[in-house]
Amino acid sequence: MACLADHAAGAQTAMVRGTAQATQGLYATLACLAAWAGIGHNATMTDCDFSSDEASNAFTLTPIGRIASDYPDKFGIPRQPGLASAARATLTLTPPFDDPLAVRGLEAFSHLWLTFVFHQSPTRWTPLVRPPRLGGNAKHGVFATRSTHRPNRLGLSLVELVKVDTRDGVTLHLRGHDLVDGTPVLDIKPYLAWAEALPEARSGFAPAPPPSLPVTFSAAAETRLLARRDGDSLRELIRQVLAQDPRPAYHKNAQNSSERRYGVRLRDVDVRFYPITTNGIDSMHVEDIVVASSPA
Amino acid sequence: MACLADHAAGAQTAMVRGTAQATQGLYATLACLAAWAGIGHNATMTDCDFSSDEASNAFTLTPIGRIASDYPDKFGIPRQPGLASAARATLTLTPPFDDPLAVRGLEAFSHLWLTFVFHQSPTRWTPLVRPPRLGGNAKHGVFATRSTHRPNRLGLSLVELVKVDTRDGVTLHLRGHDLVDGTPVLDIKPYLAWAEALPEARSGFAPAPPPSLPVTFSAAAETRLLARRDGDSLRELIRQVLAQDPRPAYHKNAQNSSERRYGVRLRDVDVRFYPITTNGIDSMHVEDIVVASSPA
Repeated sequence: MACLADHAAGAQTAMVRGTAQATQGLYATLACLAAWAGIGHNATMTDCDFSSDEASNAFTLTPIGRIASDYPDKFGIPRQPGLASAARATLTLTPPFDDPLAVRGLEAFSHLWLTFVFHQSPTRWTPLVRPPRLGGNAKHGVFATRSTHRPNRLGLSLVELVKVDTRDGVTLHLRGHDLVDGTPVLDIKPYLAWAEALPEARSGFAPAPPPSLPVTFSAAAETRLLARRDGDSLRELIRQVLAQDPRPAYHKNAQNSSERRYGVRLRDVDVRFYPITTNGIDSMHVEDIVVASSPA
Repeated sequence: MACLADHAAGAQTAMVRGTAQATQGLYATLACLAAWAGIGHNATMTDCDFSSDEASNAFTLTPIGRIASDYPDKFGIPRQPGLASAARATLTLTPPFDDPLAVRGLEAFSHLWLTFVFHQSPTRWTPLVRPPRLGGNAKHGVFATRSTHRPNRLGLSLVELVKVDTRDGVTLHLRGHDLVDGTPVLDIKPYLAWAEALPEARSGFAPAPPPSLPVTFSAAAETRLLARRDGDSLRELIRQVLAQDPRPAYHKNAQNSSERRYGVRLRDVDVRFYPITTNGIDSMHVEDIVVASSPA
């Protein structure tokens, strides 16, 4: 059983290698075992020896918690967290990271950095992407953008900390985020204004917030909002999200753009809206707000 | 061979699980194979079926490049990147991430976020840490600090981008960093001043930069600096690093603190210094600068 034991001990080592290497490693494990069981061709104990001093090319990271969010799916999420201050989320830490001691002192910070994984994005990446800010026409290097289609799929968001709840594990109440429901979070760090607020920094093709469109509500939509306990905050969230014009870039300049109807999911509702252009000025009109029939 | 093939296909899935689960998975693989080879107890094909829709608990991340730095080892590195603007580094991207297209447009940004791994820190973490800013006495939750001893060992640094060199792969020239030589980098993102410069944010126990001490140089140290081509920038780097008082917190208040000699490695030299207290005011005195005899 020496070979089996060696492999079990080597599993931790295998985990810090790249996926390709690990796959290779598993193949080797299988080959070794098959040989050991007398069903393969020649194999010696050397085949079963995975050395742990091999340079580790990759890192295995475990989420410390998950996001529950006002955004059930990706469509409509503003492209930076500060753009929709009404967006609420909770981050619930998962064992063994849910020790209230781990967040002691956190409430003294107004803002936090969350490092997370764009878990709904494909792992495939390309060197060039089309930032929505440039109308989807110009291509930029993926590392010169905040695109979700990036190597390692890491996201970084500056969010407002509203409350730290340690009554049952750890739940952080957040505001002004841009995270889809279920997002796995890898790290929390406090924001350090003296080190990280650089208002004079040059910000390339995104030197200022994107333009914000006016948003109007139909009488039907207003009636729905008035009937809800969270009507005021939902109205504000809808306004902030639609003001960013969540339509795909290639729809915005289309001839028939004002004839299309769109829907965006926020909290438990579908918000149905369409663009209006009056005297060359775009605005967004909320036609109706209906409770979503199925989970996103 | 169906079982073998299933496992090979399942290897990618196994890699996105946590280490514990992966170890468990490997055990299961071994048990399945042993059974399949007729050497274990009862096993059915079900034992060999690792479904890919299982919740993925971990992520495997591959460094996109490595840092070459003015800081050969950890001791002395300022605790935020902006504190030593003279500190230089290069980030060289590694294949397949070294495509010049991936950084197209990056030069339009003055500052970048680097997400990296504190690869010299232990993987073990504790919920409470002692921030050096508080003299090493008070304990704070690890997520309320920027401590390197954290789950997933992720670091986040705001650095100044000096130059993008794409003549042979991709090398970024950086300034004002806090990264030890060899640091593996997982992501590069442009700094967005309009979204990320929040000068009014409340920054808890670290509301302002740490105090900065005066630094003096002996005649011998000045002679060494004058003989070097990089003398001016090295002098500035030494000044900025020692001004932060890199001594361990428990040395600072010790009775005999001024009798101790210290050394810090910067570029290829050992900087030998000691603290001086005159009329109750601390300063740092550089006694000598010698070329380091061995790699850090």
